[in-house]
Amino acid sequence: MEQRTSYLEEAILSPGNVEINVQGAFIAEEENHWIDGMQRDTRDIRLPNHKTVVSHVALDIGGSLAKLVYFSREPDSKQPGGRLNFLKFETDRIAQAFKFIQTLKTQQPHVGGSKAGELVILATGGGAYKYYDEMKRVLGVEVLREDEMECLIMGLDFFISEIPQEVFTYSEVDPMPFQEPSSDIYPYLLVNIGSGVSMVKVSGPRQYERIGGTSLGGGTLWGLLSLMTGARTFDDMLAMADKGDNKNVDMLVGDIYGTDYSKIGLSTSVIASSFGKVFKMKRQGESAAEDGDGMSNGDDFDAEGTMTPERHFAPEDVSLSILMAVSNNIGQLAYLFCEKHQLEKIYFGGSFIRGHRQTMNALTFAINFWSQGTKQAYFLRHEGYLGSVGAFLRRQPKNWGRRNSIEEGHAPERLAP
Amino acid sequence: MEQRTSYLEEAILSPGNVEINVQGAFIAEEENHWIDGMQRDTRDIRLPNHKTVVSHVALDIGGSLAKLVYFSREPDSKQPGGRLNFLKFETDRIAQAFKFIQTLKTQQPHVGGSKAGELVILATGGGAYKYYDEMKRVLGVEVLREDEMECLIMGLDFFISEIPQEVFTYSEVDPMPFQEPSSDIYPYLLVNIGSGVSMVKVSGPRQYERIGGTSLGGGTLWGLLSLMTGARTFDDMLAMADKGDNKNVDMLVGDIYGTDYSKIGLSTSVIASSFGKVFKMKRQGESAAEDGDGMSNGDDFDAEGTMTPERHFAPEDVSLSILMAVSNNIGQLAYLFCEKHQLEKIYFGGSFIRGHRQTMNALTFAINFWSQGTKQAYFLRHEGYLGSVGAFLRRQPKNWGRRNSIEEGHAPERLAP
Repeated sequence: MEQRTSYLEEAILSPGNVEINVQGAFIAEEENHWIDGMQRDTRDIRLPNHKTVVSHVALDIGGSLAKLVYFSREPDSKQPGGRLNFLKFETDRIAQAFKFIQTLKTQQPHVGGSKAGELVILATGGGAYKYYDEMKRVLGVEVLREDEMECLIMGLDFFISEIPQEVFTYSEVDPMPFQEPSSDIYPYLLVNIGSGVSMVKVSGPRQYERIGGTSLGGGTLWGLLSLMTGARTFDDMLAMADKGDNKNVDMLVGDIYGTDYSKIGLSTSVIASSFGKVFKMKRQGESAAEDGDGMSNGDDFDAEGTMTPERHFAPEDVSLSILMAVSNNIGQLAYLFCEKHQLEKIYFGGSFIRGHRQTMNALTFAINFWSQGTKQAYFLRHEGYLGSVGAFLRRQPKNWGRRNSIEEGHAPERLAP
Repeated sequence: MEQRTSYLEEAILSPGNVEINVQGAFIAEEENHWIDGMQRDTRDIRLPNHKTVVSHVALDIGGSLAKLVYFSREPDSKQPGGRLNFLKFETDRIAQAFKFIQTLKTQQPHVGGSKAGELVILATGGGAYKYYDEMKRVLGVEVLREDEMECLIMGLDFFISEIPQEVFTYSEVDPMPFQEPSSDIYPYLLVNIGSGVSMVKVSGPRQYERIGGTSLGGGTLWGLLSLMTGARTFDDMLAMADKGDNKNVDMLVGDIYGTDYSKIGLSTSVIASSFGKVFKMKRQGESAAEDGDGMSNGDDFDAEGTMTPERHFAPEDVSLSILMAVSNNIGQLAYLFCEKHQLEKIYFGGSFIRGHRQTMNALTFAINFWSQGTKQAYFLRHEGYLGSVGAFLRRQPKNWGRRNSIEEGHAPERLAP
């Protein structure tokens, strides 16, 4: 089991051990379509060579989002094989996910090919514990829990090594140069950004260790912006950030030093303090309202003097400031953990990124700035589905699966050789 | 100039080169008192052996606060020497600082001992550039600008090596065990937390390098809390944080995994996502208001089910959550930079800390958690005045001072041997 593609080879060589044939898998490029009233935000992956019955679906239940992966035959029966379908649900609306899986259960004969009602759920993520009993009760099916880290890594390895046009680097000139699928991928750092952030060092297949993380993640951004901007969805927030100018709320080096460039070693456009202008501007706005001297107390507010209290806190500017702060911070931490563990390749996964330009730009900038180009940031088109795809591919005979699952309470560290 | 206390020895041996005699300096423990309507939040430092004239004051102008240090003779003429006085002003009220220095100028004969009107300002921090012309114009005095990093380090070395009951470590059982002044202090990491955060590696006297920093600092905390809690001063925010419970807004590991302790390696009380509960709770509150099903959509909200939308966002809880997030993040970054540069001692300075228990607790916890006790966090009672004290001690004959000041545009890196 120590060769990199071992479990992928097994998928092909011994279907009794791993049942999914991923040979020749590729991303279906037709337009995204609707299913049961929900629009898919992620393209399907075609599995042209998988012909056997699939009686399981995989569900990765995180703190904010539940990610579902399931197999379906091609509606057009002339096409061989089938496809992997990807769907997101909000974890606090988990009942919707259960309802959808219920329909899959009844459709099994033409969806997965197994008998009607025959369905197994491979569950991972924290919700695999929190909702375990409810899942079994509501759906009346077998639920196998798979180790979260193991699934993340297995899913990522699958995307990196098997799927063309999946992995890409980001640069402002060329937003999506794809990487060829490669088998030479270790070692690398996985930075999985969901509600919180996990950083996992991967030295080889099934050789991984959670080396760090931070609580400043997607949940922090979404929470702060839902309070401060009134945005109601992640996409609203990102759309606002696209129109924002963080200089209106962030304190730049130039705001502290003035514009006397010649004398200092720092670029005056560097962010010295995220959100650092807000406190003083709020005070000025208030004192201006009270005694009218808020903006005229003898200081030369060259950076702020022209602003009105309203404009100080435009939701667009606030959104961009917080987005950049969270992204830069994750990028700096990722760089430092790479330094500590001699890693050069960083794969960013998780539902925080959502293919958003500003986010990938900030993460890439931070990696390039701190590593001076010695480390490379990579992104994925299915970034939010690493764990659920990994769980989907983990379907094994119970005796083998159980030995490696967290049912035995193994910590990832202890699973690694 | 290579021995650690070289410039402090000079202070004693060659007053023509450094004019302040710091021998036998100690913290004056009488109650803080008022001066010109402003209460001092920092205790004076007695200089019993300094008897010569002091014709300068030091002003460290940061992004949010300006810190003033000046010398005064003892009001009670029977006492020898004099004392260092510490005063803070808000940078956007810098005119108040100038007004106060104006009064010192007229009081020079009985304050510093020099002729009336005879005064020199040693200025450091970004504002030494931004307000340079204004300072000279308004005060009509000579202004010498001193390198920001150099002043920070010189001030910190002075506090560590000369002042009893200044440096302490923090633990919940013993909040303030003081460290004896020591001459064996190098190497160490200085983490200076103002509006933004600077991390400076110090290998020896005048041997230092800015190795990192983060824009998530005091300005971020103050900005976010001034918007979200209505607090109007830093102290209001800290007082609220003292009464807060971050579990009401932060997403803990237990909120994601449920309370099924036995199965996972992580403590369920670890913060998985700072502010991570806010987004979903706001959504629930809104949908409850709209269609009443916000809390009854089939999920088992064991962690949140009992909360009301109001309680979700108590300003006390929000304050503690953001305070812990910013402090933990700074602590983790400090640990990682120590790992990268093989440092074990971390001194936290800057006006962010303000001797606040929760802040020091979070910083100390982060260092202990990540370093597993291999690194030590230190704090100072005059944490906000490192730069201004350093500038005060830098007063030298011009030819010598100029050679080492940023008037020549030296970057700290290039100042270091």
